Amino acid sequence: MIQTILLKNRPVGRPAVSDFEFVKDESDISINDGEILLETTYVSVDPYLRGRMSDAKSYVPPFELNKPIHSGVIAKVIASKNESFAEGDFVSGMLDWKTQQVSTGEGLLKVDKSKAPLSAYLGILGMTGLTAYLGLTEIGKPKAGETLVVSGAAGAVGSVVGQIGKILGLNVIGIAGTDEKVEMLKSKFGFDAGINYNTTENMTAAIAEAAPNGVDVYFDNVGGPISDAVLFNINKFARIIICGAISVYNNTELPKSISVQPFLVKNSALMQGFIVSNYADKFPEAMKELSTWLAQDKLTYTETIVEGFENIPTAFIDLFDGKNKGKMIVKI
Amino acid sequence: MIQTILLKNRPVGRPAVSDFEFVKDESDISINDGEILLETTYVSVDPYLRGRMSDAKSYVPPFELNKPIHSGVIAKVIASKNESFAEGDFVSGMLDWKTQQVSTGEGLLKVDKSKAPLSAYLGILGMTGLTAYLGLTEIGKPKAGETLVVSGAAGAVGSVVGQIGKILGLNVIGIAGTDEKVEMLKSKFGFDAGINYNTTENMTAAIAEAAPNGVDVYFDNVGGPISDAVLFNINKFARIIICGAISVYNNTELPKSISVQPFLVKNSALMQGFIVSNYADKFPEAMKELSTWLAQDKLTYTETIVEGFENIPTAFIDLFDGKNKGKMIVKI
Repeated sequence: MIQTILLKNRPVGRPAVSDFEFVKDESDISINDGEILLETTYVSVDPYLRGRMSDAKSYVPPFELNKPIHSGVIAKVIASKNESFAEGDFVSGMLDWKTQQVSTGEGLLKVDKSKAPLSAYLGILGMTGLTAYLGLTEIGKPKAGETLVVSGAAGAVGSVVGQIGKILGLNVIGIAGTDEKVEMLKSKFGFDAGINYNTTENMTAAIAEAAPNGVDVYFDNVGGPISDAVLFNINKFARIIICGAISVYNNTELPKSISVQPFLVKNSALMQGFIVSNYADKFPEAMKELSTWLAQDKLTYTETIVEGFENIPTAFIDLFDGKNKGKMIVKI
Repeated sequence: MIQTILLKNRPVGRPAVSDFEFVKDESDISINDGEILLETTYVSVDPYLRGRMSDAKSYVPPFELNKPIHSGVIAKVIASKNESFAEGDFVSGMLDWKTQQVSTGEGLLKVDKSKAPLSAYLGILGMTGLTAYLGLTEIGKPKAGETLVVSGAAGAVGSVVGQIGKILGLNVIGIAGTDEKVEMLKSKFGFDAGINYNTTENMTAAIAEAAPNGVDVYFDNVGGPISDAVLFNINKFARIIICGAISVYNNTELPKSISVQPFLVKNSALMQGFIVSNYADKFPEAMKELSTWLAQDKLTYTETIVEGFENIPTAFIDLFDGKNKGKMIVKI
């Protein structure tokens, strides 16, 4: 029996369990030449999925109603008619919320259980780690000794960006929203300094104090006034990675900020939108670096693992109440 | 006798002749080993010099009071103790407003009188042309068939950007402020379409109409609301060259615009500040391309030539009354 989770309604505000529908299928699955049969092992639930449940235009099309939702998944190959995959292999990729499914293998990456726990391939060795590594290196092009500022620094991506920054020899400053998170940036993830934007009156001055040599690279997960404050502190040839603008996503009016153009021209600075899927050709190289650092204990991460296919919607909804610590994953 | 023009006062509002001082020096000039003696032939006067006469912080330090002003100059080598330069050579570079001066040759480029009129080396074969060519190619990285939008399109830089765009096989749309300029973009400079921002009510819709396939490259000379309207029309992987933000330079309050970050992340787009002096290593290659196109009549330009060293300040001030057509140059 195969179970599937469909999107039943487009959530209004906070998603509810009733927005999802479970369907069961008792028929046998057969695979054709070139295909593989996959059994789902771990499912990643992520805040960005909320956006795809609405029908607003974005860089990815919205989920369709009454179709399966998909996200990052680790699955086991249980039958194969594709010579690139053998029975017993584990793969990661964007797959449907189904207990079993057929794939051509396109877009799937084989993952090595002996090198890291399988769940890590959804986080630090998955989209989270790849986003952090490739955003920072491909757009940020950091050089040892430079100063890196990370917003949303205590988040899954931000905490990895900061750690990679330290490995690469940067001075790393994180911006987060509570004293507890700021403390964790320094004690657990090795950031040099942290700023709590909720208790800091003058963010521009606080960043200037934490970054006396100015900001060379800014990894921006939030946009809005925090990013305005960073702009006042950028150096000549600064690189700004726009990975997210979560602070303005839910605005109903078009958000306004200070004009960035004069800052960019004055500093010959660069600002670039980053979406990890554009860098698929660099995934193998990035995975190699991340696995090595993980094996050497140079990278650390937190995850919350929930058990049971039936708990995927609840685990997803719990994200919005902050019930997770670090990456939220469902084990099937 | 050598004449020099000093900055006497920092202009308030529109510059006046009384902001400048002429001094004469009757003493002989001698040169040391490695030096050359230059006689000024042509002097470029440009709007950006106005900024350097104030003491506001910018990417170039302000001119000092009671010191010579400098700008783009073509000069003849009249004596040389430097083996890289021979008597009779012509050079271009940033030089003082002096009838004669000594130089080590550093930062000077030899120019070839037989290939183009000397004055062209201050415009289309000088900073103007280099800014247009290098901004468009180094940041814009245009591919044939793509759509280019240029703001400030009838200006010295903008009109060259559009012509290079056509040479490279782009669909070129120019934005300017009068119907006469828009007409000139099409008839004289070969743009495919022009938009008069002073008479167009909905700029976003007008750009969408002129660029039915969206905007791939935006060469931005102005910033402000015109640039906001372009943002709504950018394609995935768009490149935006920030060459100037003249529409907000004179604001006394910090200018606000729509937040660019969501547009950049949604489109994996790039926005980068451009200052031509950062690309000095590419000048020879760029000059070669520009000279070839000029010789082939693929590029056209306009210039206004005023005669006499004593008329440099007046020629500069006349810029702000629009008395020039195209590049304003003083012949000594």
